[in-house]
Amino acid sequence: MVLKTGKEYIESLKKRGPLKIYMLGEKVENPLENPIIRASINSVALTYDLAHSSEFSDLMTAKSIITGNTINRFCHLHQSTKDLQDKVKMQRVLGQASGTCFQRCVGMDALNAVFLTTFEIDNKFGTDYHQRFIEYIKMAENEDWVIDGCMTDPKGDRSKRPSEQKDPDVFVHVIERRDDGVVIRGAKAHQTGAVNSHEHLLMPTLAMRDAEKEFTICCAIPADAEGITYFYGRQASDLRRLDQSAEGDIDCGNPEFGGQECLVIFDDVFVPTERIFMDGESEFCSRLVESFAAYHRQSYGGCKVGVGDVLIGAAATIAEYNGVENASHIKDKLTEMVHLNETLYSCGMACSCCGQETAAGNYLVDILLANVCKQNVTRFPFEIARLLQDIAGGLFVTCPSAKELENPETRKIIEKYLVGVEGVNTIDRMKILRLIENLTLGRAAVGYLTESMHGAGSPQAQRIMIGRLANLEEKKKLAKSLAKITGE
Amino acid sequence: MVLKTGKEYIESLKKRGPLKIYMLGEKVENPLENPIIRASINSVALTYDLAHSSEFSDLMTAKSIITGNTINRFCHLHQSTKDLQDKVKMQRVLGQASGTCFQRCVGMDALNAVFLTTFEIDNKFGTDYHQRFIEYIKMAENEDWVIDGCMTDPKGDRSKRPSEQKDPDVFVHVIERRDDGVVIRGAKAHQTGAVNSHEHLLMPTLAMRDAEKEFTICCAIPADAEGITYFYGRQASDLRRLDQSAEGDIDCGNPEFGGQECLVIFDDVFVPTERIFMDGESEFCSRLVESFAAYHRQSYGGCKVGVGDVLIGAAATIAEYNGVENASHIKDKLTEMVHLNETLYSCGMACSCCGQETAAGNYLVDILLANVCKQNVTRFPFEIARLLQDIAGGLFVTCPSAKELENPETRKIIEKYLVGVEGVNTIDRMKILRLIENLTLGRAAVGYLTESMHGAGSPQAQRIMIGRLANLEEKKKLAKSLAKITGE
Amino acid sequence: MVLKTGKEYIESLKKRGPLKIYMLGEKVENPLENPIIRASINSVALTYDLAHSSEFSDLMTAKSIITGNTINRFCHLHQSTKDLQDKVKMQRVLGQASGTCFQRCVGMDALNAVFLTTFEIDNKFGTDYHQRFIEYIKMAENEDWVIDGCMTDPKGDRSKRPSEQKDPDVFVHVIERRDDGVVIRGAKAHQTGAVNSHEHLLMPTLAMRDAEKEFTICCAIPADAEGITYFYGRQASDLRRLDQSAEGDIDCGNPEFGGQECLVIFDDVFVPTERIFMDGESEFCSRLVESFAAYHRQSYGGCKVGVGDVLIGAAATIAEYNGVENASHIKDKLTEMVHLNETLYSCGMACSCCGQETAAGNYLVDILLANVCKQNVTRFPFEIARLLQDIAGGLFVTCPSAKELENPETRKIIEKYLVGVEGVNTIDRMKILRLIENLTLGRAAVGYLTESMHGAGSPQAQRIMIGRLANLEEKKKLAKSLAKITGE
Amino acid sequence: MVLKTGKEYIESLKKRGPLKIYMLGEKVENPLENPIIRASINSVALTYDLAHSSEFSDLMTAKSIITGNTINRFCHLHQSTKDLQDKVKMQRVLGQASGTCFQRCVGMDALNAVFLTTFEIDNKFGTDYHQRFIEYIKMAENEDWVIDGCMTDPKGDRSKRPSEQKDPDVFVHVIERRDDGVVIRGAKAHQTGAVNSHEHLLMPTLAMRDAEKEFTICCAIPADAEGITYFYGRQASDLRRLDQSAEGDIDCGNPEFGGQECLVIFDDVFVPTERIFMDGESEFCSRLVESFAAYHRQSYGGCKVGVGDVLIGAAATIAEYNGVENASHIKDKLTEMVHLNETLYSCGMACSCCGQETAAGNYLVDILLANVCKQNVTRFPFEIARLLQDIAGGLFVTCPSAKELENPETRKIIEKYLVGVEGVNTIDRMKILRLIENLTLGRAAVGYLTESMHGAGSPQAQRIMIGRLANLEEKKKLAKSLAKITGE
Repeated sequence: MVLKTGKEYIESLKKRGPLKIYMLGEKVENPLENPIIRASINSVALTYDLAHSSEFSDLMTAKSIITGNTINRFCHLHQSTKDLQDKVKMQRVLGQASGTCFQRCVGMDALNAVFLTTFEIDNKFGTDYHQRFIEYIKMAENEDWVIDGCMTDPKGDRSKRPSEQKDPDVFVHVIERRDDGVVIRGAKAHQTGAVNSHEHLLMPTLAMRDAEKEFTICCAIPADAEGITYFYGRQASDLRRLDQSAEGDIDCGNPEFGGQECLVIFDDVFVPTERIFMDGESEFCSRLVESFAAYHRQSYGGCKVGVGDVLIGAAATIAEYNGVENASHIKDKLTEMVHLNETLYSCGMACSCCGQETAAGNYLVDILLANVCKQNVTRFPFEIARLLQDIAGGLFVTCPSAKELENPETRKIIEKYLVGVEGVNTIDRMKILRLIENLTLGRAAVGYLTESMHGAGSPQAQRIMIGRLANLEEKKKLAKSLAKITGE
Repeated sequence: MVLKTGKEYIESLKKRGPLKIYMLGEKVENPLENPIIRASINSVALTYDLAHSSEFSDLMTAKSIITGNTINRFCHLHQSTKDLQDKVKMQRVLGQASGTCFQRCVGMDALNAVFLTTFEIDNKFGTDYHQRFIEYIKMAENEDWVIDGCMTDPKGDRSKRPSEQKDPDVFVHVIERRDDGVVIRGAKAHQTGAVNSHEHLLMPTLAMRDAEKEFTICCAIPADAEGITYFYGRQASDLRRLDQSAEGDIDCGNPEFGGQECLVIFDDVFVPTERIFMDGESEFCSRLVESFAAYHRQSYGGCKVGVGDVLIGAAATIAEYNGVENASHIKDKLTEMVHLNETLYSCGMACSCCGQETAAGNYLVDILLANVCKQNVTRFPFEIARLLQDIAGGLFVTCPSAKELENPETRKIIEKYLVGVEGVNTIDRMKILRLIENLTLGRAAVGYLTESMHGAGSPQAQRIMIGRLANLEEKKKLAKSLAKITGE
Repeated sequence: MVLKTGKEYIESLKKRGPLKIYMLGEKVENPLENPIIRASINSVALTYDLAHSSEFSDLMTAKSIITGNTINRFCHLHQSTKDLQDKVKMQRVLGQASGTCFQRCVGMDALNAVFLTTFEIDNKFGTDYHQRFIEYIKMAENEDWVIDGCMTDPKGDRSKRPSEQKDPDVFVHVIERRDDGVVIRGAKAHQTGAVNSHEHLLMPTLAMRDAEKEFTICCAIPADAEGITYFYGRQASDLRRLDQSAEGDIDCGNPEFGGQECLVIFDDVFVPTERIFMDGESEFCSRLVESFAAYHRQSYGGCKVGVGDVLIGAAATIAEYNGVENASHIKDKLTEMVHLNETLYSCGMACSCCGQETAAGNYLVDILLANVCKQNVTRFPFEIARLLQDIAGGLFVTCPSAKELENPETRKIIEKYLVGVEGVNTIDRMKILRLIENLTLGRAAVGYLTESMHGAGSPQAQRIMIGRLANLEEKKKLAKSLAKITGE
Repeated sequence: MVLKTGKEYIESLKKRGPLKIYMLGEKVENPLENPIIRASINSVALTYDLAHSSEFSDLMTAKSIITGNTINRFCHLHQSTKDLQDKVKMQRVLGQASGTCFQRCVGMDALNAVFLTTFEIDNKFGTDYHQRFIEYIKMAENEDWVIDGCMTDPKGDRSKRPSEQKDPDVFVHVIERRDDGVVIRGAKAHQTGAVNSHEHLLMPTLAMRDAEKEFTICCAIPADAEGITYFYGRQASDLRRLDQSAEGDIDCGNPEFGGQECLVIFDDVFVPTERIFMDGESEFCSRLVESFAAYHRQSYGGCKVGVGDVLIGAAATIAEYNGVENASHIKDKLTEMVHLNETLYSCGMACSCCGQETAAGNYLVDILLANVCKQNVTRFPFEIARLLQDIAGGLFVTCPSAKELENPETRKIIEKYLVGVEGVNTIDRMKILRLIENLTLGRAAVGYLTESMHGAGSPQAQRIMIGRLANLEEKKKLAKSLAKITGE
């Protein structure tokens, strides 16, 4: 049985060699015990535990096409449009259960993209990347790995190509070639689950040109490899995680689960040949980048919808606590939140049900619709969050700290004056307010808003793809035909 | 072979008894020869002709579950989520090909809704409506009927129930019961394809109450039945259809295809028992109304997307003709139009792929997502049309009539001054401008804008359904769980 | 007393020599009796009649700075920010009273722009344009002229400069120079009040370059000058104006007032020297174009707000007639319409109160805010119209013609079935529905929607100006200062 | 000379008696030295220092109508529409200079509202509130006070009136009447500048009814009065202020200026008669509430526009640092940010230039337009912030802490990999990213987003006022008149 539990996952992390992690100016010696990191590990652990739950195991698992084993869906190569839809459903469930980013999608999306691309490269060039990669997937399935799909380079001056940068290291590239592999240097930014992963699967960040062969590298590296340094991102309200009160860490908003971000430095890391899946075949770069992006843009039509459900639930709860749940404008705003959220879900499902089989045998989403999906994700969560702020009232940003509850004298005052409708515990009202703060301005807002904006590509990246796939010539023909324009 | 061609469809209309149609203050003696009506008949005829085209016959036809015959999909009972998706794809193709409403969806949607509801009524009450209705469907399939799904009553004072109206006739109701059937009176408003149909399939317009049993009537009536009067709606720029110029009717914008609307009066029309499919079972009214509405709200995620493709094509064409197709703001607006249009399509596909089998054996769309789909249709086409107006420039509302082209002297001036980029015929530029006018302010705008707003239910109707299906209690639990609120 | 009444204005039009007007393929011999043109003349006449009304005469008139006479504000050179605000208030009143474009603003805006520009040209070049123009204004004031501010050339291939066009005539230019004046050729498109004017005041359509001196011409030409041909634009539902029923021309929607558009051809028209106000001073082109555009973009913050009031009133009326005026969603939509409309008004007032005196002595609006004003006008009217369509219900596009009311038999049916709440005349309900159609899809929609989009410059023109006037460098300094970025 | 400098202001705060402030579970003994509070004091101090700057002193000061002294505009009773406009301009300047809420507007707005209301109360009831209040204003002017305009009660169950609450103390009310004054109890929530103020000016939170006379109390209380407790609100990323690095507190984003919020408890506070300005005159409650709200809603058209300028500047700066400032989509987004921001400014200016003199002699803004202004402020800042997040790229939420810069080894890596365009210091790039974080997700986002939503009344409060002032009956008449509907 290859399905780990959350606990087994955490145990497996302990078996990694020591990671070099810097946070707030200090080296983190024990990431698993660090409360800030731990919350984000909890989110990942959910992806293991729900695979064992009676309610969700069907959604969370699949049958390996390589071994026939029952595996976690996060390691799965999609075999049908139903698989693609189940992926989205699974992501929604996990977003609902964690209220944040659970970090494991990017690996699943990278697996599927590299799988189909290596097949196509081999087909053209007679290389053996695909077989190598199947061996890699086998390990991933059997070890139930968390894989950090690693794409975004720091990029330096964005008006320049990789090879034109003053310091080429702002794009990962091969700096040395050995008989048994290559040595790479560079960095990957915005790596959400990096320190909670077993593996990094590196991909080029954009379509490289022929002259940029050294930048055209796709390979796998263990998270504890020699030469990697992690810089933990400083995020909104991150220190809240440290200040537990007697009531539990209410001020956190979401005491159990969290996200995170890392800058990962690859300082002359060696990669053995069997872990290289593309090396210089620049004409396949755009295929890899676009298919990975498409899978990952689909993902946002699931995970963010799940978190959106939490925002809607928080809105309905605070409305209830405030005694306004029957006001017509409140009900209308809740309806609007649901409407927007389900529109995102519709986009996630649509690019899935319109997916198609690839030459390699797995299923790829409809690329145009996946880009449309993500483009909406760069908009609607902001409006959903705005509506939540509207319904919440201002107290979620003016509320005193839960630490005031530890002093019986101040607690009495807080409980008296922050009371809502009769029958609702004032502390519960504070808890939901802090969750709202967390989701709209705090730690989870980073994932729900900024990541919705830039994760899986910034808005303009989707617009370029939509423009490219729009097939305007075909549409012009429709218009000309109806207007009886002939002879062109 | 039961699949009619467009020509055979038109022949079949001639076989109807005379219809009593009033238009512009006069009785229309020969509707098939009337140029205003004829354009809308052409749109319906497309639904027949494409069933015989090699490119679209797969999409346009299906296998009858009753007879096993190959039938037009418009007569089909959906057998899978693929069928539901194919329905949407078919509607998009027809919207693209006609640039307007092709009027036949409402019958398909009514067939499926009445099919599933009659089954459920019989199950509860031991009635035999379902068998009767299967017989009716058999005829529909074999005759390849256009059926007018007839739901919206005029409603009078909207703040009152049917039974409270000063004149109850503003809701269709049974006014006499005979051994062999019933006599009904009332009217149905906004009936798009009414005069182009073989049959009307009447349904109650809202969930009736127990005391409103006489209003709870679902039945089928031939289009040429005794007692029916049609009042043809007066629409924007309708008289353009009459003024053909030597160049063809350029000012029409879309010379071949058009939509229309009718007010249909049922003045004491007799309905034999075998054509009655619901009679007083008020508790099933909401099931019928909601399932019909859901199917029809799905439809808008197909047909309006197809027309949207025409708007996008018209925008790209006029940009080309004006010499601005490479301006970055033009390209960005085209991308936005595509993005919005594909979001609508995504909603149409999503409610389809999430559909489920009913007790009766046909497939019903996901009702929440179908309402989300239509809600977006009440918004995005207006923005798409606004963007088209933006790209078009102002000439589409200031352009002289094509009649000026008949006089060589004025034609020379028009051709000289309304010229666009080199190589484009000025007349072609006028044609595309008139199509743009037609789509945004003219005859087709009625379908693309106002019908998108109110067809299949006004926006508030969808909001009520979205609010009802939102499952806020479940979402509250998610939020409370994450905030560690316990004990409720 | 120089203030004409509406009747006197119409009389004065009769005194013009014959105009060469083509409409629908025919020459219009008597434009004042043509019902289509007449409705638009009625709109202009309002600008005269209200100057004599006790309620509005203060707003409609001003004291001439040239003669000291009381003159119509449409001939006035603004003397203060109050004048600029009063202009906007006057335009709102006229929009309310006519429900359409009243065509006279463009002349007022041209007067003020040419006034300030000629002063600045003279200052630089020692020319005497300004004094010439003052003489012209004197006549305008004394004759209470309607002046057609004439800017937009047909432009041909928009990717090319005037001098690069295959046929340079698509931009008005000087083709011959004589001792006593010049001869011009070309055309001006989208001229709203052209056939209802006494005069045309031509301005270049864009900032010309040094090599485009022949295109750099600003001059005045009488409407009945030799060589002018008018092509009357064909517009949505224009023929409705012709079909009066016994009940009055209900189907028109707005039986009394209308807009229009013309393409005006200047085929070798002679302009005497004293009517030339700029001739080759290309460096002042942008000053003229930008100041005229700014004044005219301000105008839209008045006139369209007035028409917006009519849309809101129509929405409230049909809600009342339908019995839904107390539904919370209806009230909320009305509030939104008001909110958007008053935002436009705020923009109109803001660019006025922030206006400043020019070197020539008249007042110019704040150019940045005037562009912001117009940019909003390219958006909000579309949303206001969408909301009106929402509130209206679908009947405004499906309603039978008022001609059915002439036959007592059909009238009875119409009255019975199109009834609204008790106490409201069905005919009145039809009238308001037709007004709604007129405003959102018909003749007035051209002015309220398309003209809001493109009149006074298309959206991108405003964005270019906003971008240019944004002063980003100053804003960067603010951000850098707060972030403690030093040393740049 | 009554104009204090920022330094003198801070000195004056030291002269207050000790305040009872709780923050993070502890009593703050020296608020002026607390770094979290100090940043917000710095913001207030700007309102003093700029009154002495040569550039802004004209805007920042006014002539007292009581003493004739030159006073800070924050203590001024507006004497003209120019004064109202200057208020908005002053607020924009301060928003630009602080990048956050400077807290002093609410006192100015309360002064003006109480001034006009007391006059009207006296007029009706023959009381002497107005004279009392003039004496109070004299002190405010002479001492150059910061006054905390204190309106919002905690409200408990929002579905109930004050008198129906289980604990009436959730609304401030009189609990004891003495010969020389009254004793009040209750709390005021969301008090931004409370701990930085000299005085609180309490007003009822809503229109009280006759039976709620004890809740109808308007009075002034010194900030250090016996019985007051302050609970300092816990806000996003507040602890950043504590962790200064060697480079300065970069992670703060805005190292110098900040906002804050307090819950203020009035636990049986005595108010002497001469400080009472309304006591039971419930029919004037709505006048006080609505005029205060209108002034304060106007304020948001100034201060948030100033902060908006900072967001725009930050966007332009990071675009420059990233090397994308010339990308057309970046330029277009900057233009959109400017457009939205200037629309808000237009609304602030419009309600000012349309203001009118009150019976008491000061000027009141146009109430409808002030509500329209604030309604837009509940929307556009969210879109401006979204666009800033878009332009920024994701690094502002994934960037390592500035503390990594203290270690030379890690500093080298950070500087290498977070480099932007050549010539820009990486540390500067980090600084601007942290400012962006501060403005969109951090401490300043509370003011720019949530306060924009709820400050001066939540969105629905404005909608109610807009609906009430819309004058729909007048607009109905316009529509009916144009449609020729007569006889009603």
